[in-house]
Amino acid sequence: MSGKSKYEEVTIATEPVFQGKIISLQVDRVLLPNGETATREIVKHPGAVAVLAIHEDRMIVVEQYRKPLGRSQVEIPAGKLEPGEDTASAAMRELEEETGFTCSEVRLLSSFYTSPGFADEILHLYVADKLTPGTAKPDEDEFIDCEAITLDTAKRYIEEGRISDAKTIAAVYAWQLHRLTGSYSL
Amino acid sequence: MSGKSKYEEVTIATEPVFQGKIISLQVDRVLLPNGETATREIVKHPGAVAVLAIHEDRMIVVEQYRKPLGRSQVEIPAGKLEPGEDTASAAMRELEEETGFTCSEVRLLSSFYTSPGFADEILHLYVADKLTPGTAKPDEDEFIDCEAITLDTAKRYIEEGRISDAKTIAAVYAWQLHRLTGSYSL
Repeated sequence: MSGKSKYEEVTIATEPVFQGKIISLQVDRVLLPNGETATREIVKHPGAVAVLAIHEDRMIVVEQYRKPLGRSQVEIPAGKLEPGEDTASAAMRELEEETGFTCSEVRLLSSFYTSPGFADEILHLYVADKLTPGTAKPDEDEFIDCEAITLDTAKRYIEEGRISDAKTIAAVYAWQLHRLTGSYSL
Repeated sequence: MSGKSKYEEVTIATEPVFQGKIISLQVDRVLLPNGETATREIVKHPGAVAVLAIHEDRMIVVEQYRKPLGRSQVEIPAGKLEPGEDTASAAMRELEEETGFTCSEVRLLSSFYTSPGFADEILHLYVADKLTPGTAKPDEDEFIDCEAITLDTAKRYIEEGRISDAKTIAAVYAWQLHRLTGSYSL
């Protein structure tokens, strides 16, 4: 047996635990391949987009406070998907809201699950490198600073822990790869 | 003002919502920089380790069912930190349990937050490239297959969506970079 349902865990029961503004949480009881049962704690998330935005050989990043970490972080522009929203449009919307930069096209680099052990969040990572500067329009309760950094600065921020999230590190790898090969893709 | 507490969100109240076997969930009410209040939904996680393990120019991966995604995925070996466990030891332990491969040293590539918007999970990504094959010892309720794949196969799995998680994609970028520069680091 192979393929996407290999070792499938069949749901016996689902207990809804929490329904929040952004995430929800449920606990599933599942039947394992050996006939035993187990529980799975599952966070549901609407999905997100992020943009590796390059302007004049610098990466556009935003600094914001991340309450789960108890400190601020430097990350590429990103945000949740709105219901029914196209992912490329969402990427362009978040880029403009958070940084003011606009672009006529974004290209998908990869889509990945951030924490497949306990969450269904998928993040669509785009690249945009023909940008027009403009004025940021953050949401009312969004407090962010925008910066354009060189690859060396990005590496230093990673060393210092100011950049330390999966999407931004993946984006810096893609940027480094583009420097070496001319392509952002693996 | 700058630094790690820029735009700090001060906790006014914390409501514990759920305490599970792996994650817990709380809702914090916070004071924003503009004097308004907001809520933050926060998942707490013990942290995790993962290993980019290279043997004879192939990457060691495991396939397992991921209940939050409703399908199986091919990922690098990984697992949760046990309480008080050293992260390098945890990486070597997970590698051996899931794949049978042992090694005398692992090197830290990077540590990153998987979903800083709603979770405090940090993942420590190691590389190991001097491996000794052995017999896997998965936990009783772990159903996994181990495979050693080439870089071309890894790229194909990414295209097909069989590999689609943040840590494995970061690892494949690091591996590709090592092919080009001789170093896994950015």
